[in-house]
Amino acid sequence: MNDLSDNDLSGNGLPQTLLAGYRNFMSGRFTDESLRYRELAEGGQTPETMVIACCDSRSAPEIIFDTRPGEIFVLRNVANLVPPYAPDGEYHSTSAALEFAVQSLHVKHIVVLGHGRCGGIKAALDSESAPLSPGDFIGRWMSLVAPAAEAVSANTLMTSGERQTALERISIRYSIANLRSFPYIDAQEKKGHLTLHGAWFDISTGELWVMDRKTGDFIRPSSE
Amino acid sequence: MNDLSDNDLSGNGLPQTLLAGYRNFMSGRFTDESLRYRELAEGGQTPETMVIACCDSRSAPEIIFDTRPGEIFVLRNVANLVPPYAPDGEYHSTSAALEFAVQSLHVKHIVVLGHGRCGGIKAALDSESAPLSPGDFIGRWMSLVAPAAEAVSANTLMTSGERQTALERISIRYSIANLRSFPYIDAQEKKGHLTLHGAWFDISTGELWVMDRKTGDFIRPSSE
Amino acid sequence: MNDLSDNDLSGNGLPQTLLAGYRNFMSGRFTDESLRYRELAEGGQTPETMVIACCDSRSAPEIIFDTRPGEIFVLRNVANLVPPYAPDGEYHSTSAALEFAVQSLHVKHIVVLGHGRCGGIKAALDSESAPLSPGDFIGRWMSLVAPAAEAVSANTLMTSGERQTALERISIRYSIANLRSFPYIDAQEKKGHLTLHGAWFDISTGELWVMDRKTGDFIRPSSE
Amino acid sequence: MNDLSDNDLSGNGLPQTLLAGYRNFMSGRFTDESLRYRELAEGGQTPETMVIACCDSRSAPEIIFDTRPGEIFVLRNVANLVPPYAPDGEYHSTSAALEFAVQSLHVKHIVVLGHGRCGGIKAALDSESAPLSPGDFIGRWMSLVAPAAEAVSANTLMTSGERQTALERISIRYSIANLRSFPYIDAQEKKGHLTLHGAWFDISTGELWVMDRKTGDFIRPSSE
Repeated sequence: MNDLSDNDLSGNGLPQTLLAGYRNFMSGRFTDESLRYRELAEGGQTPETMVIACCDSRSAPEIIFDTRPGEIFVLRNVANLVPPYAPDGEYHSTSAALEFAVQSLHVKHIVVLGHGRCGGIKAALDSESAPLSPGDFIGRWMSLVAPAAEAVSANTLMTSGERQTALERISIRYSIANLRSFPYIDAQEKKGHLTLHGAWFDISTGELWVMDRKTGDFIRPSSE
Repeated sequence: MNDLSDNDLSGNGLPQTLLAGYRNFMSGRFTDESLRYRELAEGGQTPETMVIACCDSRSAPEIIFDTRPGEIFVLRNVANLVPPYAPDGEYHSTSAALEFAVQSLHVKHIVVLGHGRCGGIKAALDSESAPLSPGDFIGRWMSLVAPAAEAVSANTLMTSGERQTALERISIRYSIANLRSFPYIDAQEKKGHLTLHGAWFDISTGELWVMDRKTGDFIRPSSE
Repeated sequence: MNDLSDNDLSGNGLPQTLLAGYRNFMSGRFTDESLRYRELAEGGQTPETMVIACCDSRSAPEIIFDTRPGEIFVLRNVANLVPPYAPDGEYHSTSAALEFAVQSLHVKHIVVLGHGRCGGIKAALDSESAPLSPGDFIGRWMSLVAPAAEAVSANTLMTSGERQTALERISIRYSIANLRSFPYIDAQEKKGHLTLHGAWFDISTGELWVMDRKTGDFIRPSSE
Repeated sequence: MNDLSDNDLSGNGLPQTLLAGYRNFMSGRFTDESLRYRELAEGGQTPETMVIACCDSRSAPEIIFDTRPGEIFVLRNVANLVPPYAPDGEYHSTSAALEFAVQSLHVKHIVVLGHGRCGGIKAALDSESAPLSPGDFIGRWMSLVAPAAEAVSANTLMTSGERQTALERISIRYSIANLRSFPYIDAQEKKGHLTLHGAWFDISTGELWVMDRKTGDFIRPSSE
């Protein structure tokens, strides 16, 4: 099973498109920013912002925010969800990343970045879909927003597209509420050292909608 | 706690650097690829590769592989770890992402992308460090590689830099082994429908080292 | 009670701002289009489109669509609603306007134009509000969308702004469905002689969202 | 029946002339008044005047009075009629709009704006015309002025044009009288908080004739 596939003509096993892209990176961006990379290696990373984004191939935060290396610390999981605080001794990748970002890197901002056409949100709304695997990890993971999914699904006067967008935005607010269930996040926010943000990216139009922290509504930045 | 911070001059709450970057994206890359984004929105994503990378702000796979939107499905957690298969009904963000990528999107490749100077790996090696938080989520998460960390730490003839690189690479192989503990991943790999890859990125030099699937060694791609 | 108010310095009773505006019209637009007005007077109106819009002072269709005189036949009522077909011998201003537009003027398009921040829709969502008048005409009129208002109000996970937008769009679809309850409209549409459209105007940003006739979703025109 | 018509080249369904006009609006007037639109969205509308006008495509009050967004609240129906007060629990779009304008927005003026060559008035005078539809909504709606239409028609010494203008002006006075049948309108007018106006627009010449509130005559504004 370890034979080289058709993609492995160079003998090292990475897909050719990734290797070709890597060579572009080296001859382009890395050459331009080699000093910055060296400094970031020697001095360590000091990002001011953590972004919690979806795994979706169409919503990479480094692309959407055109960030430089070292600028944002990025957690990505299905549907950019933050589970509630649960110090139960289990493995929690989200909680570990939050602890690292806030307690060690002292980021000043956490941005929960959702997006349209999210497959995880669609799965949450699609109640009659069969599990993908016996373990049904997607079903279990998306059950975090099950009550909201049920409330949204109940409104059959909205189109399926409108229900999808509604749940995408509700789950961003839900994740932000869960962020505040972490004692050190709540404390840092109350001290004014940490700000929590929500944003939603429309893949089709490129529009970025930003959550108003007072009302929870998503609006377009005024100076866009 | 909802007062606008100094960054909120535009009244919408996102850090100014992200908003400025987003405007660059819209006037540049999105304008160039607007048709592709629209097609990806309407037709859905069909990435051929999943990348499991670290949250580190210096190792974004979209940058290192210069990928286009829709090309890679990306999970990011601290130290790019894959826990072993555990269908226990708990919330598993990593398992959910794997299930979505392999069972729903039918990716052909999974790349575990590690990198140098990884803070998570450093924490695993630094046994006398106090927990960052009472819940100690980082400690719990990195305990996935605790036996390997102990073995590496015991070798005092290696420098601390060598021990760090050694554990970074051991943990990539460990994550790939854990990928195979997922029954559907093992089955797809055996059928030749899925290939598992390891890679390690040197932040300082930009070098990409690719894991040889026969030996487990990390080598430089031949044509680089 | 017929004494002239402060606004009546010119002795004719119209508010001064309207008189001043009328003089602008006469020296500007009417002068430029006097031939067109004369032709429209002598030949009669032949608009191809009927627009059903809200009374709201911020959403005049002639402004939003920058139309010329004679171009659109315009019905305006609170919340741009179309009641269902009811040939009961009562006075129906909406039905009379539809009959005139479709049966006499033979318009080819009917556009139901809603808008954000609609006071009528807000009244429909605000169930505990007291009637404005003993007759409660607003309450009775908005009861046309009462079932939808209840369904939307039930979802308390959406913000009040999101609920408002949701009901504004649902009621546009509702009005379009009611248009089809008129036998002659249904017949003309089926023959391909008449097309029904929905649109929603965002007062704050000026954005126009157009209803996709297949899905009912509201989207931005592609070439905007 | 959902096939796209010839007008739907852009795929979104609005007639091309409206979309082109909308683009003019966005690049012109909306750009000039974007701040005003934003303020009107956030602060709500506060029009001082309600205008009751005809659906006719040639008599848009925003054009004739060259008004700015937010300035006039506009009801439009066939022949700018106000039915008498009837708190019977039926759907009354005119009464709902009046209630909203006077009781909620507290407008200071109501202007009934008629115009020449009105198709609704012509239908009322043309007694032998067959109903346009089995429900005969136009006939029923225009029956509001049937006694006046009969009286005018009986005067065969007037030309048909004179009879038309006569009924157009009589029906403006009739609508103003019906406005006073609404208890809260009568009360506000008697307190001096609300003024009722009549006006008649000549499509052919652009002339505006204003009703003298003492005599009911229509005269040209003195300073025109």
